[in-house]
Amino acid sequence: MFPPDLVQLAEDIRDGFAARGLWLATAESCTGGLIAGCLTHVSGSSAVVDRGFVTYTNAAKTDMLGVPASLIAELGAVNDRVAEAMAAGAIAHSRANVAVAVTGIAGPTGGTATKPVGLVFIARARRGGDSVVERHIFPGDRTTVRLATVRRALQLLRESLG
Amino acid sequence: MFPPDLVQLAEDIRDGFAARGLWLATAESCTGGLIAGCLTHVSGSSAVVDRGFVTYTNAAKTDMLGVPASLIAELGAVNDRVAEAMAAGAIAHSRANVAVAVTGIAGPTGGTATKPVGLVFIARARRGGDSVVERHIFPGDRTTVRLATVRRALQLLRESLG
Repeated sequence: MFPPDLVQLAEDIRDGFAARGLWLATAESCTGGLIAGCLTHVSGSSAVVDRGFVTYTNAAKTDMLGVPASLIAELGAVNDRVAEAMAAGAIAHSRANVAVAVTGIAGPTGGTATKPVGLVFIARARRGGDSVVERHIFPGDRTTVRLATVRRALQLLRESLG
Repeated sequence: MFPPDLVQLAEDIRDGFAARGLWLATAESCTGGLIAGCLTHVSGSSAVVDRGFVTYTNAAKTDMLGVPASLIAELGAVNDRVAEAMAAGAIAHSRANVAVAVTGIAGPTGGTATKPVGLVFIARARRGGDSVVERHIFPGDRTTVRLATVRRALQLLRESLG
């Protein structure tokens, strides 16, 4: 059900995290659970996947991850600072060493002139370590945008292994 | 990426919950985010999907949903009482009116004589209302078991609309 390259990424992440004794967590808005769903597609993922937060509403981002409601009120849910706060919150509210977080506009509705459909922010945070956030505009329909987001989030997890 | 009948279920749930002003939440172990991922596959799902909990580890079930660690220690993570506690915890830790929870053994490893691969418990809880839990044995490989679990969980959500 997932494209072969995503399954390969999930296998690489499973093997790399397991070999290092590391755990991961996910915090997902526009992908709605697909990153975690892809990671757990491969057998043995229970050795590396700690938990996932599907924070589809703004309230969920605040309740589950501690994203300040004031930040969302000021900037909206789709921006780099919310993505960073989601990744940091996933670390703070889990036992994971590395977390990825995504927030974006999968479409087909919900886009604006400044925040078009396909705009996605992807953040990665490490416990006690660095963080990074990326801004993407992914072309295509809802499923294409969501799968492109899953792909890049998985790449960021794999790249965290160095 | 999801079978057509699952997409139809997600559309029915979106339309039915939205028409009634109801919100839903998911709590997933063996499906690892796929129930939420399928619900959010359809545009407009943001009007009904509050949040999802991907509680892959036992610690996550306790931390995120309040499933008693003693219950898991006594019975393991795959049984009807844990599924019920996950669904109740999803209600308690969300703003949803209805929650579904699943815990099972997707395989190909992890099965035992008393808890074979394909054994899945699926629970549904309503805020201030009834709850139900089902025991299934789904045949097939890991993906087949996971998708069968998603299908039945979505059916339970749809059936909650009466």
